[in-house]
Amino acid sequence: MDQKEGLKNRGRTREDVEIRRKAAEGFTGADLSAISEYAIDPEMASKNIENMIGTVQIPLGYAGPVTIHGEYADGEFLVPLATTEGALVASISRGMSVISSSGGANTMVLRDAMTRAPVLRTEGIAHARKVMEWVSDNRDLIDDAVSGTTSHGRLDDIEFFPAGRDLHMRLSFETGDAMGMNMATIASEAVCKLIEENTGAVTVSVSGNMCSDKKPAAINMIRGRGKTVVAEAKIPRDIVESKLHTDAASIARTNTSKNLVGSSMAGTLGANAHAANMVAAFFIATGQDPAQTVAGSMALTYCEDDGGDLYISVRMPAVELGTVGGGTSLPCQREALAMIGCVGDGKARKLSEILAVTVLAGELSTLAAQAAGHLGRAHAALGR
Amino acid sequence: MDQKEGLKNRGRTREDVEIRRKAAEGFTGADLSAISEYAIDPEMASKNIENMIGTVQIPLGYAGPVTIHGEYADGEFLVPLATTEGALVASISRGMSVISSSGGANTMVLRDAMTRAPVLRTEGIAHARKVMEWVSDNRDLIDDAVSGTTSHGRLDDIEFFPAGRDLHMRLSFETGDAMGMNMATIASEAVCKLIEENTGAVTVSVSGNMCSDKKPAAINMIRGRGKTVVAEAKIPRDIVESKLHTDAASIARTNTSKNLVGSSMAGTLGANAHAANMVAAFFIATGQDPAQTVAGSMALTYCEDDGGDLYISVRMPAVELGTVGGGTSLPCQREALAMIGCVGDGKARKLSEILAVTVLAGELSTLAAQAAGHLGRAHAALGR
Amino acid sequence: MDQKEGLKNRGRTREDVEIRRKAAEGFTGADLSAISEYAIDPEMASKNIENMIGTVQIPLGYAGPVTIHGEYADGEFLVPLATTEGALVASISRGMSVISSSGGANTMVLRDAMTRAPVLRTEGIAHARKVMEWVSDNRDLIDDAVSGTTSHGRLDDIEFFPAGRDLHMRLSFETGDAMGMNMATIASEAVCKLIEENTGAVTVSVSGNMCSDKKPAAINMIRGRGKTVVAEAKIPRDIVESKLHTDAASIARTNTSKNLVGSSMAGTLGANAHAANMVAAFFIATGQDPAQTVAGSMALTYCEDDGGDLYISVRMPAVELGTVGGGTSLPCQREALAMIGCVGDGKARKLSEILAVTVLAGELSTLAAQAAGHLGRAHAALGR
Amino acid sequence: MDQKEGLKNRGRTREDVEIRRKAAEGFTGADLSAISEYAIDPEMASKNIENMIGTVQIPLGYAGPVTIHGEYADGEFLVPLATTEGALVASISRGMSVISSSGGANTMVLRDAMTRAPVLRTEGIAHARKVMEWVSDNRDLIDDAVSGTTSHGRLDDIEFFPAGRDLHMRLSFETGDAMGMNMATIASEAVCKLIEENTGAVTVSVSGNMCSDKKPAAINMIRGRGKTVVAEAKIPRDIVESKLHTDAASIARTNTSKNLVGSSMAGTLGANAHAANMVAAFFIATGQDPAQTVAGSMALTYCEDDGGDLYISVRMPAVELGTVGGGTSLPCQREALAMIGCVGDGKARKLSEILAVTVLAGELSTLAAQAAGHLGRAHAALGR
Repeated sequence: MDQKEGLKNRGRTREDVEIRRKAAEGFTGADLSAISEYAIDPEMASKNIENMIGTVQIPLGYAGPVTIHGEYADGEFLVPLATTEGALVASISRGMSVISSSGGANTMVLRDAMTRAPVLRTEGIAHARKVMEWVSDNRDLIDDAVSGTTSHGRLDDIEFFPAGRDLHMRLSFETGDAMGMNMATIASEAVCKLIEENTGAVTVSVSGNMCSDKKPAAINMIRGRGKTVVAEAKIPRDIVESKLHTDAASIARTNTSKNLVGSSMAGTLGANAHAANMVAAFFIATGQDPAQTVAGSMALTYCEDDGGDLYISVRMPAVELGTVGGGTSLPCQREALAMIGCVGDGKARKLSEILAVTVLAGELSTLAAQAAGHLGRAHAALGR
Repeated sequence: MDQKEGLKNRGRTREDVEIRRKAAEGFTGADLSAISEYAIDPEMASKNIENMIGTVQIPLGYAGPVTIHGEYADGEFLVPLATTEGALVASISRGMSVISSSGGANTMVLRDAMTRAPVLRTEGIAHARKVMEWVSDNRDLIDDAVSGTTSHGRLDDIEFFPAGRDLHMRLSFETGDAMGMNMATIASEAVCKLIEENTGAVTVSVSGNMCSDKKPAAINMIRGRGKTVVAEAKIPRDIVESKLHTDAASIARTNTSKNLVGSSMAGTLGANAHAANMVAAFFIATGQDPAQTVAGSMALTYCEDDGGDLYISVRMPAVELGTVGGGTSLPCQREALAMIGCVGDGKARKLSEILAVTVLAGELSTLAAQAAGHLGRAHAALGR
Repeated sequence: MDQKEGLKNRGRTREDVEIRRKAAEGFTGADLSAISEYAIDPEMASKNIENMIGTVQIPLGYAGPVTIHGEYADGEFLVPLATTEGALVASISRGMSVISSSGGANTMVLRDAMTRAPVLRTEGIAHARKVMEWVSDNRDLIDDAVSGTTSHGRLDDIEFFPAGRDLHMRLSFETGDAMGMNMATIASEAVCKLIEENTGAVTVSVSGNMCSDKKPAAINMIRGRGKTVVAEAKIPRDIVESKLHTDAASIARTNTSKNLVGSSMAGTLGANAHAANMVAAFFIATGQDPAQTVAGSMALTYCEDDGGDLYISVRMPAVELGTVGGGTSLPCQREALAMIGCVGDGKARKLSEILAVTVLAGELSTLAAQAAGHLGRAHAALGR
Repeated sequence: MDQKEGLKNRGRTREDVEIRRKAAEGFTGADLSAISEYAIDPEMASKNIENMIGTVQIPLGYAGPVTIHGEYADGEFLVPLATTEGALVASISRGMSVISSSGGANTMVLRDAMTRAPVLRTEGIAHARKVMEWVSDNRDLIDDAVSGTTSHGRLDDIEFFPAGRDLHMRLSFETGDAMGMNMATIASEAVCKLIEENTGAVTVSVSGNMCSDKKPAAINMIRGRGKTVVAEAKIPRDIVESKLHTDAASIARTNTSKNLVGSSMAGTLGANAHAANMVAAFFIATGQDPAQTVAGSMALTYCEDDGGDLYISVRMPAVELGTVGGGTSLPCQREALAMIGCVGDGKARKLSEILAVTVLAGELSTLAAQAAGHLGRAHAALGR
């Protein structure tokens, strides 16, 4: 098979991967040997990628153990993190050590729904009103259309946003333990089809961006998407001093100047130090969609000097994750999920609670480091 | 060595990794065999992670080839992408095929600077003014402080944002081919120290969040961070029809209703269909910091029905990436960079141009699919 | 009475006003004769201002007549506008003339609720959950507390936003024909008091800024505040050409480049040309709170070239206004309300529909002028 | 003259006003007598409004005196405010009394520039680059074009934002004591014409919304528009207790929970309690454009418990105002300007400093009232 043919190979076996990899070597002139040393049976990844030529290996470490008192996650956890940013795992681990020494972190899931927001075209205001009324009056038909596409999903809520001739509708679904985008998309298409047949409205797009998937959007911060989860810890004065080498007032001051005032002047959605670092490392380790770091990291970090003790909390309004589907069944990712007891059904909320505490630990450590003035030295020593 | 001791092992050899991995197996009860089959010498990753226990393997594929006419990237490229989202690579590849059939994409880097924004504490307005004046009057001393910390970096610009007693300063640096955060941080600390010694202001944090790193921030969309890069293509009517099965007017309509109107009502920074998908897959493949998908994906997609032809463009104001440092020297990632001729010095702008065209291709394919009404079917067939 | 004493006079009669005005003349050295020639009995304004020394007179004109087909406003209206910006009234009038020639504008109120969002302090996550559960379980007590403070208002909805130890609650009220802030504030205080007594939470502020009153906030754009109202018109090709001297494609292009793309890159809430001009002039004329121009003007303008005809629409998510209370009972303002048949009870939604069409007319005229290239000349001729 | 003819009258004398007013009475059936009792010679307002039929009278009061230590405003000021919101003037006055008792407020103008941002159409990326290069290379021609349109204005800065085929350019001007929009618009048109002639780019609109005028835009918060001005005061502990009946820690807590955290979660531009109230009342009194309350009110309020004393500050990034032009020459408005020594040339920055201190006083009073728990009672007693 010549090089050009090799690139067009669409097979999914290891042999097909090899043919493509060699063709890619031929086309690009690059040596692609490291990517070929992988532990995955390519056929397992057949629903995860096309044109596979190997894998990229991301270093995996752990932070913790950390003590968590959640509704779903309760106990001591060693948290898997995949990253190439030196000092990150060490910093999170420091935060976890402080949290555990202080009795652990509390965490809670406040809301749980996946959204998809189609946009339909109407003739104008009067037609849009008729469509909205039809949808409201025929919720049972809509629910049937949804349940015709999924056995796990359920439609929770519909919000309407007409703009000119476009009628945007934000549909919220319960999606069980899958992150749920695919389920929500397919169900939304069925809903759109039903509306089209009954109202004359025409679907412009099954996603009109008010969902909003993988974009930093105020609507997700305000209305939530995926899991809305919070976590908190209280660090006694002596631990702040002995382990973090600073004091609660300095940390609270740093949080206000940086995360609240600085973020406000920068026009930021969310108010945190580096939540995206924790979210990305956790998502990559556990087979989540790393593009969803965008909304997942839109956290608000809250600190208070409580008479010398430090109260710290994070609020994460839009954590999109799952324990089934996506990359969760790939071997390495599944092992990472296994490390925290989050393989398969019934574990998605637990996973989001563990993430929230991981973000809490990372925020605590970085804020304390900045308050103590050693962020730069830490990076110089540990490299990045 | 007992289990608890194993977890505390801080070594960096393969043997140390094994000790920790086994200790993690003991602690968590999970089988961690897949993560142990990696191609990296752990000592190569010693600046990338702590507590390493193995790697996570992300499937790597390619999209393209695609024809690019950039200032730095010029030719045909096979673009490496690491993802677990089925249908993504196929969709980008379809966009690239359409672009290449249409003569290729143009791309250009408009701006290139990495920022860090310390916040210093002053006594109030009068003191803040004195500090700002001192900085402006002693730019040569500031530049010396910067060059004392880096041979590659150079301070470009300083913006001041006083708020109450806090004086936020946004420093912009040229950082060569490194993404540059570490360099900018270390240089900023030197600048802060100098200002402290001469003005009595006190550093609250070397990062006051007006940088703004890994947070979705309007300041980055407006002022840029890392590379500001644009890309465009013109797709003739017959190719739109034969390859995308729709027409330019429908694609432009979808773009307006979804990316412009929908994003506006959702309160989104940026206006695109799914730039984060392309950015995350490209960043993971090429050893970038995946947490920087947050700003990198803040793209604006622009479409126009040009007499039946389709004009499409993306604007990416804040692409933070590099070809040295971070994860770029790890074996798999280096091979991915090699595939597109972006290993090492002098390649960072080229890399950003290739990313911009990749995003362009992904946007084109998705908008066309939604305009043609087959987004859902694509996912159903290819799985996600 | 000496000058200093005069400034301290707290009386509300015309004589008291004169004493203060003379004292102000003495204190400032300014001649304050024009402000003393007013038509109001100061005692009528005793609930509108303190330290009154006269009035400021804002020129009042009209735009229209305009034909409106609303649910509440139906007929031909001459719209009162108070402004000092030359060319504004003429421009709006031009838009209205075009709309009327085209058969009039449609308009509809989509939502109607006033919000107040207290913030209460809890001990942390577990306590916050208890408070939320208590509120949900005791909605009848909450409703009683509300109805104990108002006979017109009714609590519609409660949304919770816990952040750290702060529990933000957004309360939505039906408020009849009053704009409703005062009613909502007093009712919210009663709700807070009840929650305090039963849960141990402590009110930090009756307004925790998630209301959000008089601040440009995404939450109001997304969730609405006051009236959410839309308006639309279709302008036939020949009228676009003969009266606006341009064409539908040019207007649609201008709207996309300016209101959609430009606003997106500027990080704007809303997407319009100059809605604030119409809202401010209308609010001042009709006795509304001009500070509420902030949310009232957060409009999205939507244009479409419909085969040579122009379809244009505005969406205004947060129009806070009333026909009773505030400045609506002052003589001039009441006359302005009378001009459009909006005096007193049962008229608030009608008022919002007339405003929406006024904004539509202003947007149409300005977009057309910019498309036709004569914005600058218009200002040069009519002065500003 | 019959009624319909009367409405079409375009004259500017008092007699013309009467003809129109009577025609409006005829058309609407409303009695319009109060609006006819005005102190203005209508011909003085001929550049401020069209279709004038009278005036709307807004109650005018004063807050203060307040002691100000600014660069331009230095002394004791009695601040004119026009409002119909009961309790507002009293509340601001209370804040001013506290500030004056504490030694007065400091204030400073940080930046002063008016912007206009045209959008031009290019053929694409390559053409856009040529246009940008031509502009950069021919700055002298550009400056000549500007100075051909104005003797007071001067072009300060040009920023480019290409998006697809649209090239947005943000032009910043010094505009002396006029608010400057008109001047900036006319100069920008000349610049556009010059660019069109030399580059083949075509103006889509002289305002492409990146200016951004009368829209809540992050770009104005970040880059400034009009005056960027700050103010601060330090209130000793005993005055906080005796005059505000609360303590510094409670006020700082309220500011954090409400203005920082609440605003962040609401997706607000700015972070304040009610700056728009002060800005609108001040703008209406002094002949400013009340629609510019939108950007003028985008303030950040900063509080700190300084060992029991209260430090409070406001940052206002985009105060658009002037002492010449607009409504500043109307009789009542001119008197209001005279009260604070701000009539005519050389006074615009002074005016902005007085506004900043007025906002500071209003923020202080409201935060203290909320901290002390008597916001609601204040409104109940003083009416709104």
